[in-house]
This record gives sequence, C-alpha cells and structure tokens, in this order.
Amino acid sequence: MNLSPDLIDATVRCRRDLHRYPELSWTEYRTTAKVAATLDALGYQLHFGEDYLDLPSVMGRNIDVAVEKQRAAEQGADFAWLERMGDYSGLAATMSMARPGPVIALRFDIDALPVTESRFSAHVPYCGGFASEIEGKMHACGHDGHTAIGLSVARWVAENRERLTGEIRMIFQPGEEGCCGGKAVAKGPIITGVDYFLAMHLGINVPSGAVVVNPTGFLATTKFDMTFSGHPAHAGIEPNAGANALACASTAISQMLAIPSHRDGMTRINIGSLVSEGGRNVIPASAHLCGETRGETQALDAYMMEAVRRISQAAGAMHGLKVELTVQGEAPDCANSPELVARLRQQAEQLPGINDIVEQRPFGASEDATWMVRAVQAQGGQGVYFIMGSDLPEGHHKSGFDIDEAVLGSAVALMAAMVESLVTHSSN
Amino acid sequence: MNLSPDLIDATVRCRRDLHRYPELSWTEYRTTAKVAATLDALGYQLHFGEDYLDLPSVMGRNIDVAVEKQRAAEQGADFAWLERMGDYSGLAATMSMARPGPVIALRFDIDALPVTESRFSAHVPYCGGFASEIEGKMHACGHDGHTAIGLSVARWVAENRERLTGEIRMIFQPGEEGCCGGKAVAKGPIITGVDYFLAMHLGINVPSGAVVVNPTGFLATTKFDMTFSGHPAHAGIEPNAGANALACASTAISQMLAIPSHRDGMTRINIGSLVSEGGRNVIPASAHLCGETRGETQALDAYMMEAVRRISQAAGAMHGLKVELTVQGEAPDCANSPELVARLRQQAEQLPGINDIVEQRPFGASEDATWMVRAVQAQGGQGVYFIMGSDLPEGHHKSGFDIDEAVLGSAVALMAAMVESLVTHSSN
Amino acid sequence: MNLSPDLIDATVRCRRDLHRYPELSWTEYRTTAKVAATLDALGYQLHFGEDYLDLPSVMGRNIDVAVEKQRAAEQGADFAWLERMGDYSGLAATMSMARPGPVIALRFDIDALPVTESRFSAHVPYCGGFASEIEGKMHACGHDGHTAIGLSVARWVAENRERLTGEIRMIFQPGEEGCCGGKAVAKGPIITGVDYFLAMHLGINVPSGAVVVNPTGFLATTKFDMTFSGHPAHAGIEPNAGANALACASTAISQMLAIPSHRDGMTRINIGSLVSEGGRNVIPASAHLCGETRGETQALDAYMMEAVRRISQAAGAMHGLKVELTVQGEAPDCANSPELVARLRQQAEQLPGINDIVEQRPFGASEDATWMVRAVQAQGGQGVYFIMGSDLPEGHHKSGFDIDEAVLGSAVALMAAMVESLVTHSSN
Amino acid sequence: MNLSPDLIDATVRCRRDLHRYPELSWTEYRTTAKVAATLDALGYQLHFGEDYLDLPSVMGRNIDVAVEKQRAAEQGADFAWLERMGDYSGLAATMSMARPGPVIALRFDIDALPVTESRFSAHVPYCGGFASEIEGKMHACGHDGHTAIGLSVARWVAENRERLTGEIRMIFQPGEEGCCGGKAVAKGPIITGVDYFLAMHLGINVPSGAVVVNPTGFLATTKFDMTFSGHPAHAGIEPNAGANALACASTAISQMLAIPSHRDGMTRINIGSLVSEGGRNVIPASAHLCGETRGETQALDAYMMEAVRRISQAAGAMHGLKVELTVQGEAPDCANSPELVARLRQQAEQLPGINDIVEQRPFGASEDATWMVRAVQAQGGQGVYFIMGSDLPEGHHKSGFDIDEAVLGSAVALMAAMVESLVTHSSN
Repeated sequence: MNLSPDLIDATVRCRRDLHRYPELSWTEYRTTAKVAATLDALGYQLHFGEDYLDLPSVMGRNIDVAVEKQRAAEQGADFAWLERMGDYSGLAATMSMARPGPVIALRFDIDALPVTESRFSAHVPYCGGFASEIEGKMHACGHDGHTAIGLSVARWVAENRERLTGEIRMIFQPGEEGCCGGKAVAKGPIITGVDYFLAMHLGINVPSGAVVVNPTGFLATTKFDMTFSGHPAHAGIEPNAGANALACASTAISQMLAIPSHRDGMTRINIGSLVSEGGRNVIPASAHLCGETRGETQALDAYMMEAVRRISQAAGAMHGLKVELTVQGEAPDCANSPELVARLRQQAEQLPGINDIVEQRPFGASEDATWMVRAVQAQGGQGVYFIMGSDLPEGHHKSGFDIDEAVLGSAVALMAAMVESLVTHSSN
Repeated sequence: MNLSPDLIDATVRCRRDLHRYPELSWTEYRTTAKVAATLDALGYQLHFGEDYLDLPSVMGRNIDVAVEKQRAAEQGADFAWLERMGDYSGLAATMSMARPGPVIALRFDIDALPVTESRFSAHVPYCGGFASEIEGKMHACGHDGHTAIGLSVARWVAENRERLTGEIRMIFQPGEEGCCGGKAVAKGPIITGVDYFLAMHLGINVPSGAVVVNPTGFLATTKFDMTFSGHPAHAGIEPNAGANALACASTAISQMLAIPSHRDGMTRINIGSLVSEGGRNVIPASAHLCGETRGETQALDAYMMEAVRRISQAAGAMHGLKVELTVQGEAPDCANSPELVARLRQQAEQLPGINDIVEQRPFGASEDATWMVRAVQAQGGQGVYFIMGSDLPEGHHKSGFDIDEAVLGSAVALMAAMVESLVTHSSN
Repeated sequence: MNLSPDLIDATVRCRRDLHRYPELSWTEYRTTAKVAATLDALGYQLHFGEDYLDLPSVMGRNIDVAVEKQRAAEQGADFAWLERMGDYSGLAATMSMARPGPVIALRFDIDALPVTESRFSAHVPYCGGFASEIEGKMHACGHDGHTAIGLSVARWVAENRERLTGEIRMIFQPGEEGCCGGKAVAKGPIITGVDYFLAMHLGINVPSGAVVVNPTGFLATTKFDMTFSGHPAHAGIEPNAGANALACASTAISQMLAIPSHRDGMTRINIGSLVSEGGRNVIPASAHLCGETRGETQALDAYMMEAVRRISQAAGAMHGLKVELTVQGEAPDCANSPELVARLRQQAEQLPGINDIVEQRPFGASEDATWMVRAVQAQGGQGVYFIMGSDLPEGHHKSGFDIDEAVLGSAVALMAAMVESLVTHSSN
Repeated sequence: MNLSPDLIDATVRCRRDLHRYPELSWTEYRTTAKVAATLDALGYQLHFGEDYLDLPSVMGRNIDVAVEKQRAAEQGADFAWLERMGDYSGLAATMSMARPGPVIALRFDIDALPVTESRFSAHVPYCGGFASEIEGKMHACGHDGHTAIGLSVARWVAENRERLTGEIRMIFQPGEEGCCGGKAVAKGPIITGVDYFLAMHLGINVPSGAVVVNPTGFLATTKFDMTFSGHPAHAGIEPNAGANALACASTAISQMLAIPSHRDGMTRINIGSLVSEGGRNVIPASAHLCGETRGETQALDAYMMEAVRRISQAAGAMHGLKVELTVQGEAPDCANSPELVARLRQQAEQLPGINDIVEQRPFGASEDATWMVRAVQAQGGQGVYFIMGSDLPEGHHKSGFDIDEAVLGSAVALMAAMVESLVTHSSN
C-alpha cells in the first residue's frame, strides 16, 4: 500500500488545522462541519444525530448548543453545515460500492480535552504555529490526528471506489473522552449490519514504527457525577438546622474509597473532584463530585457501581439530604477478534515504516470503541482495536503532548490496506 | 427529729449486709427478699411485679431468672420470698394510716455495679470485713445505703403509725443503673394518686454535713445497644463476599460522634464499648456496641436519638447488612417542685448534723427517679430529688468508693422529718 | 441631643454613596479615600497603615494592591489619597481638644460582602438608584451605614470642638467580615491610652427604635483555611502512586466535625467550603477548604482549634501529604464594662426616637471589636459594644438586606451624646 | 513405594490420638512430647528451642508456659520430655546416614485451631470416638494428619537407614496458624545446609487421589495486632477530657480499609476483630484489634503494611493517644523449584492411589513454609510445597472439617519415595 505524497501532506495539514481549534466532548461542531464538507465533496452519504446515534444512550452531554454553534461559526465553521447537522456533533458517512461485499466500519474519535497547551518553544505545535487557539482546551490525546487519518482513508476509498466492493462506513465519533459517546454509536443504526469494525489510537506509550495489533486489558469503566443537595444554616447559631452536603460528601468519598476488592480481578475507583462552595460560617448546602469506577470485566465494574449506588443513597439517608447519581460515561472491556488480529498483523508486516509488531500489550485504561467491537461481534462480525505507535515528547493529557506526524501516513496506509484486504478476502 | 441509736445502728448493719452481696440491675433477688421480709414484719402490704411496675416499660433486662434466683438463694435469700416475689426484683410496700391524709411515696434504688471492689487495707469495707463477696460486682454507688435508709424510714413510719395520716408508699426500685427501671415504676400503679414524692442520693461530690435541696441539670438520656449482623467471608480469597459488620460499626461510630450540636443546648453522645470477635482472616460477621445520648432536655436527647437511628439504619444500608437498635434505658430531665424544695430546706435546717444547705447544684448526670418526679407533678402532686452529702474516699463507680456511714442516720432523720411535716401540714 | 437636619441628610447621602461601591475586606480603598478626604477637611489628624495598625496581626489579607487601587480609582477614589494611605485600607483620625480630658475611641467597620444585591423592585436601594454597582459585592451587613454614622459623629465633634475636652479617636476599621482586622487595630498604637471605647452595629434582629445596651454572648471564633498538597497519578493505571488530597480532606472534615463537646460550654465548628478540582481519572493532587471554630470563651475556641490543628496534621501524615493550616481571622468573646453600659442606658433613655432599651440580648455570633473592648479594659479603661435596632426587609448577608435609614440619625445622636456625657463626666 | 500395612495403621492411630488433644500455636507441648518420644526411640537426634529455632524471629507467642505444660501433663504428656524440651514447643530431629549424601529437610506443622468440633453424628471423629477432648479447640486444618505422616516417614527413614545416604532433618513446626513459627524455623540453624526441602498440606479443596505438585499464588502476608491506649472520662460530665480509643480505632479501621489498590497486583486487608470494653457512659480508654494484610508479592504486602503503620500512627496523633502495632505473624510468597516439582511429578506418577496430578493451582492463601522454601533456595538448594488432595466433608477451619484418612498412607509413601529418589539421584 503506497499512498500518494499529496494524501500524506493533506493528512498533516488537516491535523494541524484541527489542532488549532480543539473542541470538547459533544461540542465538536466546527470539526463536524469540516469533516462533513470534506466527505460530502468526496461523494459520501452523511448521517447526523439519530441517523447514526442512539440518542437515549448519549451520556455526559451538558452543553448549550446555541452558544457552542456560535463559537464554532466564529472559528470558521460553515453555517450551512452547522444547520444541517442538527443538535448533535459527529457524523457517519457511508459509501456503497457497485459490487456487493462486506460492510466495513472504521471509527475515528474527534474530541479534545480541557488542557491548556504548552507555550514552550520546544513544543512543536507552538513553534510550528498551529497550537491551540483556545485557552484551556487542547487536542492532548491525538484525536486531531485520528480525524485527519479518517478523512484521508475516506479519500483513498473514494478514489479507489471502482476497485472496492461492499460498503464503507466512516464514523467520526464525538465524546470519546469520558466514554460518553461510544455507547450511543454502538447502539445506533450505523453499526447494524457491520461485518468488520476497526478503530485505532495513536501513541499510548508505543514508539513510532511499532503497531500493537492486539491490545488487551481494556478496563470496563463507568464515569459518574454525584450531587448532594442539603439545606444551609448559620453554623454558629443553629448548627442542627442544616443538612450538611459537605459532611455527606466526605462520608461518601471515604466509604467509596473503601469498597472491598473482588475475588475475580482488579477493580478501581477514583473521585477526581469535589466542589462545595459557600460562606465559611454557613452549613454547606450543596456539593458536586465527579468519579469513576473500573474493572477488568464489566461484571467487576458493575460490582463497583452497585456499591457506589448503595453508598451514595445511604450517605444521603445518613445526613438527611438528597444525593443524585448520574452516569456520565461508560465503556465495557472487550477482546479483539482473533481472525481480524491475524489479518492486521499480516497487513502491518507488509507496510513500509512499520518495524515492530507487538502482539499483546495491556491497554491499562478505558476506551469506548469497545462498545462497537462488542456490538459487531454480537451480530457475528469481527472487530479490532489497535495501537499505532507514536513517539511522544510528553504523555497523553499533558500540556506538552504532541504526536509524531510521520506516523499519520502509516496509519492511513494500514487502514487502507485492511479495507483492501477485507474486500479482496470477502469477494473470494 | 431525733432517731433512736438503735435505729441508726440497724441502718448501718443493714447497709453492711447488703454491701456484701451486690446484685446487678434486675437481679436484686436477695436484696428484694430481705427488704420484703423486713417490711412484711413491720406490717406493710407488699406489691411485686406488675402490682407496682408497668412491665412493658421495663428496659435493659436480659437475665436468666432461674440462675439468678438460685444464686440469691445460695447467698441467703429466703426461698419463700423468692417464690412469692415472682419474676421481677424490687417491690413497693404501702401502709395506710388510720386517718385520711396525703399519699407520700419515697423511692430508694437497690442495684449494684459491675465493679470489682478494692482490696486495699485502707478501704473500710475491706478492713471492716463487709466488702463484696462477689468478684466483679460491687455497691459502688451507695445504693446499699439507700436501701438501708429506706428500711429504717419504713420502721420509723411503722413505729409512728398512730401519729401519722394518709398513706406511705415505700418503693425499692431495681435497675437504676443504666436508667432501666425508673420508667416502669413511674408508669406503674404505685405512682397513681401520689401527692408527694421524695428520692435522694448519697454523695455526688457533696461533703458530709451538706444537703443539696434542689439539684438541677438532670440530663435526659437514652441508653442504647446496636447489633450489626453481616456475613463472614475469607478475607484473602473473596473479600467481596462478606458483609463487614466491623467496617459498618466503625462508620456508624465515626458518624454518631459527629452529630451536630444543637442551638437549644447541651447534647452528648458516647459509644462506651464495641465488641466484634472473629478470626483475623475472616470478614467480621457481627459486632455489638453500647452507647448513650444525653441532652439538657428530653427534646435535645430525642434530637440525638433521632440522628442515632438515622445513622444506624443508613450505615446498615451502606454496608449491606442489618443493624438493630434497642433502647436499654431512658431518663428524662426534671425540675423539682419549688414548694417541696422550700419544705425540704426548712426541715434540713432543723436537723442536727446538717451544717450546709445548698440551694442549686448542677447534677451533671442522669437519674431515672426523674420519671417519677415528672409523673407525680403531671398528676398535680409535688416531687423533689435531693442530695445527701457524704465524704467519699474515691468517686462513684470506682473500686475504692465508700460512703460515710455517719450520714445514714441524718438521711433517715430528714426523710422521717419530711414525712412528719407533710402529714402535719396536710392535715391542717 | 438634637442634630441638625443637614447632618442627618448628609449621613443618608453618604451611606447611599458608599452603598453603590461596596469593597471587600482589605480592599476598602475607595471608602478609605472618601473618609480620609472628609476627615482631613474637618481638621482631623489622619493615621494610616502601621500608624494605626499592628501589621503582624493583620489576617486574611490576600489581595493585589495595585489591581484594587486601580479599581478604586476607576470608581472615583481620589488619586492623592490612594497614594498617601499606603498599602493598607482603613484609617484612624484623631482630634485633640484644647482642654485635657479623657481619650475616647469610636470604631466603625467599613467593609462589604461577596453577595449579589437584589434587583427586585421592592428592594429600596435598587428602586432608589443606589444599589451596588459591582456584580457579586454588596453592603449586606450595614457597614455602609456604620461608616456614614462615623463621619457624621466626626463632623459633630469637629463642630463642637470648643466645648469638648480630651481627645477623640475615630477608627474606620477594614476587614471586620471574617474577623480579619480587629486584632490589628486592638494591638496597634491607636488603642494605647484609650479611656473609653464604643462600637455599635445596626440591625441584628432588633427593631427600629430599640437599643440593646448590653449584648452578651459574643462567641470567640477562629477562621481558618486548610490546603492539602498531594501528588496526582492516573487512577486506573497506578492508584498507589498518588497522594490523594481529596481523600485526606474528607478524612479531616469527618474528624473535625466529630471533635468532642466540652464540659465548659458551647463550641461550634463548620467547614463552609471545599474545592478540589481535577480530572475524573486522576488522583486529586490538591484541595482547599475554609472553616471556622467558635466557643463561648476564648479557651473553648482554643480547645477547638487545638483539635483542628492536631487533626489536620494527622490527616496529612495518614495520607502522606502536606496540610497547611492558616488562620484567616480571629475574635475573642468579651463583656461590656458595666459603668459604660449604665451610662449608655442613661443617654439612650433621653434620646428622641428610642422607645425600647433592652438590657441583655445574646449576640449569638462573633464580632472583632471585642479585641478592642478587651484591650481597653486591660489597660484600665471601659468599653461597650451596643446594637442600634433597625427594621430589616431581609436578614444580614442576604441579597435583599437593607437598613432603615431613619435609624442613622439616632445612631449619630447617641454616639454624640455619649461623647458629650463622657467629657462632661470626666471633667467633673 | 509400598508401605507396610502396619505403618499405615500406625499413621491413622497416631493422627486420631493427636486429634483428641488439639493444641494452639506455641502450646503444642503434649504433641511435642509425643513426637519427641517416638523419634528418640527411632534413634533420631533431637533439637529443641534455639537449637532449631531463631528465637528473635518467633512471632505471636503470648502464652503462659507453666499453665500450658501443666495442661499438657494432665493430657498425658510425659513429664521428662516436658522438662527436656525447654520453653518452646516443636522440635527438629536429625539422622545422619553412614554414607555421605544430600541434606533433606521435611517439614510438618503441628498446631490446632480455636474452633469447637462438631458433635453431629455424621462427623467421623465424633462417631469414631476421637473428637477433640477440648472445648473450643480442634485440629480443623489437618495438622494432626501432617504430624502423623511426619512420624511415619521418620519411621520409614529409620527402618531404611542402611540404604540411605546423607542426612534427614524432620521438622515439626509449631505455630503455622497465623504464620507465627515458620520464620523462626527458616532463620534457625536447622535450615542451614539443607539441599532439598519438602512440605505439604492435606486437602485445600483438592480431592482424594489428586496431588498438586506445583501450587502457585502463595500470598505474602503480615498478621498484626493494634492496641489503642487512651484515657477514660465521664462522657456526660467532661467529654473533652478523654482520649477516645474506640473513636481512634474506628478511624483507623475506616482508613485501613481504604488503602488504595496497587498497580503491581492484588492486595488485601482485613480487620478481623476489635474489642473495646467499658462502661456505656465512659469514654473508652482502650481498644484492641487483630488484622492482616496480603499481597501477591512481598513488596505488595510491604506496601500495605507501610500504609497500615502510617495510618495507625496518624490515627493515634489525630485522637491524642498511643497506638501500638505489633506483628504477630508473617509469610512471604514463594515459587517452587522447577527441578523438584518435576521430580515430585515423576514420583507421584508411579504411586498407587494417585490418579490425578495437577501442575499448577493457585493456593490463594498464605503458608509460612514459604520462608523455608525461600531460605533453602537462597543457599542454592531446592524446595517444593505440594498439596495432597483429600476429600473433605466440610472446609478448612470449620467445625465439621475432617480429612480422608485413606490419604495418609499415600502421603507417607510420596514423601518416602521423594527421599529415596533424592538420595539415589544424588549418589549418582
């Protein structure tokens, strides 16, 4: 698989444009508009909102659509596309070939993070002039690269349309950070009928030139918020009259951190933030925390969440106040389909620029493409999630994060090679 | 009021006999048999069990009647009286005078404590040969003296029967320690119709020769037990399979100790003991604790207990196990009747041996005669609880506790003087 | 004492001007400039910064002087006065009379609160056009009135200078909210040599027309902040690598709320806010809380703070991180001088408009003028803190708070009458 | 390897005798006397106390030697052996062969458990008349069988002395329960110079007829006690005067149960018991708890214990009292020597009665023979710990536990076969 230099250049340019305008989960309107315009021009059929998502499965989406679209427009989003996409960001784009063949879905995540980008001179996006234009937001996990790769693969498919069979579905998923969007995609209409599913991530502590064809150890996870609603009271005059939201939250936190470990494997819990603001002399009336559970399996994550639920309700009862628990994100564990892993290895071995193919490597974190891998497998198809190594100056989610742009072309090539291979294979 | 030297001697002898055979709450069978025999011989009518108690109001009574009666018999209790008294210890004894007059009730508590008596040579009961015969039990709060005083007052009344009017009710209450018995007396038939109620305590950090005629600050209190029933599990192999009673109890304790203070006044809480026994490598399946709340008023104590209840149930829900809360004792606050306080001051002033009459003094602890003071006041009568000072070598509930026996006679005389005064007054 | 209508009008106008430009503790630069200009014109000698304050006793002052002065200038503060006052807001102004006599100090607090003022049409400052110009700040405790009263008393003194003896010291104290500034005034040079000290508060649930000449029950208090500094770590990948600031803060909060009550009287504790922000999947590296203790006496407040210190250090040790405790404010309890209370009653009785003189009334909260009352008493002088009743549409610190301006004149008159009386009395 | 029927019968008889007289850790005086008498008669050289143990490494030994020896004598222990063994129970017995060869150590643990034996008719020891004679103690883990096996192996060695080479060391270890004794054996003189070390356990959920030749997953563990020493105070009168041991213990428990999990593998913690006794109205002055940590590796167990130490000290500081942590037992993880595993498999395969040889099986619990396996490996030798399957009517440490006596002969045969094989092998 040799790509044209032009396609590789376009991938880099596209990534840099996206890098300048990072958009948080569910607010990727500018990105969506850009992706839509590109794919529309290539002849794809576009699917927005409930045409590709199961809306009831959307999680962690607390945004002001009008404000965000206005912002996107100011950052250059085409107004017509902002209109056409409706309320939900992200999209799926499909192209049916002339001849019958397998349905292949490729998924790329598109959202950025609430991180302020480095302004050190050695930071390539900064000295290269394409650092984030937005204070406090940054593509610090490489999803700008993912999106650019997806667009180039889409172009390659369009350009090779005559040679291909079956159907291609390009999914540009919003809200991967916090595992908010994957479930809605997996349960949406776009996954139905998919025979082969592929997704990938850049980096993940794997060096440039290496591909991990079968990462394991995806942790099932649930992201949750907890809101404590009590009553204020003057702490000096009538301490008994309040319902102390902060005391309740402290109890809940201490107890959640002490959920017993489980016979069947590793579990995790974290409360990442708590905010309870009010006067020093007032019994605090409200508090809000953000937390997450994880487990080696969905059952273990469910064990943790069952305890979280029990503790949150009991803490409320203990302190005489209302505790509301809301799930903001979720991802299961998953296992790649062995046949697809084998095919991926085969294709990767033939690819120039790939000098190390790693079989297994614990992923150690969570990823909501696992919903889609599971959904496709459940309907008899195959799925694989792989890691495209990239040297990183600083780790994921850090202000100095940057991807090795030399890897972008290899990723496009590997994805294209897989498509070609699957089509060829299936038409046999 | 001059008592015969013989009566004073008898009081001391009686106290020493009782001191040798201390009996814990609700097991005062030997004491009751002795009191019954004495009062029966003096011509009193005796009332046992439900004839003087409201049985549903009995608290904290977890005893083996047969075992305790057997023990009492071995310690010299007359078998006939053990039979006649039925299952409940304590008694009331009434004597109606020939002429009509007021109904006067005097209450004396009779139980001892789980304290091991001192064997130091300076400890008077030990060197005097009347220390406790029972390892681990001791009259360490002076109720042996109270009982002896009551019997001597009863004798004085019987001997002066012709001069008196109305009716005398002598109440020998079981289970004052832990506030277990007072409520059953107060709600029982023996209080109905009482015009004047008197009770007293020896010591309480008041020196010999002083009388506190109007102690205040009786704290309302509730004594409770809490039992946590979970499930065991091997802590190494399946830590998730248990329901951890000790973790639950720890949570409940920490939370109970943090019940907010109250605008309306002083509150207290204490967890005095916790026992959770089991193998080091087993998730503890059960735990038991004993605690108490207090408040300046019944409302404040109720505020505390409402929180205790809420916390205990919520802690159980939090840890997935059953928590049972049982009330083992209760006493309200109370205020003496001013007229009776004035009369008591008057009588005390005339008594030889009394050299200091203290008006107010915070009691600072709890006492379940308050149930009776309140009950009598509620039916229009008057009540007073007073302190008869006594030098103490060591404080109440300590192993070196001892009363100043010289005070016993004064106490008998003051009680007798009050009876005489009330009869005289009333017949006017 | 009859004031000129002009003086009363000026008091109201001054209060309304101050009301429009509320300034938080230690940032009262505009207010100070205005007060300074007025008093300078009246012939007072002005004392700024360390000339009236003990700087090491300043608490809770975390401000950017340049930013705040710039802001004050934009709000109309005279630049020359901003220069002359130096870094510290507030001031003392003294005037010595021709004839010798007592040194009288009057104290007025000048700071506002972080409260957003009501925009309801019934809210007088709003419909009257003098509501706060500053979003999020408001004179919601009446210190605008206090300052205006002080300026009018100062004018009365200046106008009656010939008739008076001794020396007048007018103290315009910054940072009363949070009890930040009183200690620095009390330990500063301005209190040395004071014979009589007076301070007052408007409102406090006392109606217009009433004066509480001897409020009691000032609670000793300490305001503290606590900062927890741990280490972040990825909560899924290496949960052991973090030092969890939020877990530590939760422990500290639970434990602080359980500090045992004290034999000697009422105590209070409150943690009013906690903020720990960070990613959901990151062990929280930092947390910050604001709290306060109170006690009926300084000793009781010290008992609470000793426990707070112990718990904060131990919580840090328990979780392997650093906990920093800083005191942000402090006030002791105090008792008014009886002679001065008596004189105040006498003067108030003669004052038109005063129809109810209340002797005792529990203050129930804290106030840092108590530092000054104590300091003056300690050097042999007398001090009084009184309440000038004012009907309030809504309580203190609420967005609809407003004072009854009709009371302002009475307050000026009572202060002036006290000055006249003390001078007359002392010159006798 | 065919054993004589007589030897098998003797093994069963010996096990039944031991079963009747269970002795807890470090009190195995009767057992030791019996073992000593038997081995002495067989010609072994006996080593007691510091001749086989490293006394400073003894843990969890809190006994009254005189009382226990008296008890052992009453249960039939020979007085001369009780004298000769000195203060420490257990022993090692050595026999040197005529010809040089390897040093082989076999270890058998001898202690029983604080469990009350079943009196159900279906319980074989009960209906067979050899149930525990001691209320509350029971051989509920099969160490009676281990000891009997050891004695029969010793007899086989003695009877085959002429054919063997090198040296045999038979170790009868006290205090395996709670991992109290293994470290002292491993660091004692009896392990020095050992070339091959073997130990075994009956049961462990493996059926009769099966042998697990290479159990894995021994958990490193530490058994600890914690004593909290505070001050009592009357909870109603001066709650501030106490140092609350129970509040402190509750804090420590809640915090210990919340020690974060570790990146490197499984950890466990349990607090199995807490006892804090005292009056309901007294601030509890003392508390005592028993707990344990575990980890997949010694480093993980050390991580847990480091946190336990930190928390215990900090909890003491937090509550102003003294917390003492004492280690009562310890065991590391270990890995069997592969060569010895292979040899064991070889021997087991040839043994009649063995129909299933299991390679790996997670042990899932802790065992202090691991100290010896590690010590022998550290000096260049080989060690193996294996499981001799036994059908069990009820699990280990339960009152209905019983071993399948048919397995005893196989165990003796396998041990004997290993000795023979090692000697033959080594003499090659």
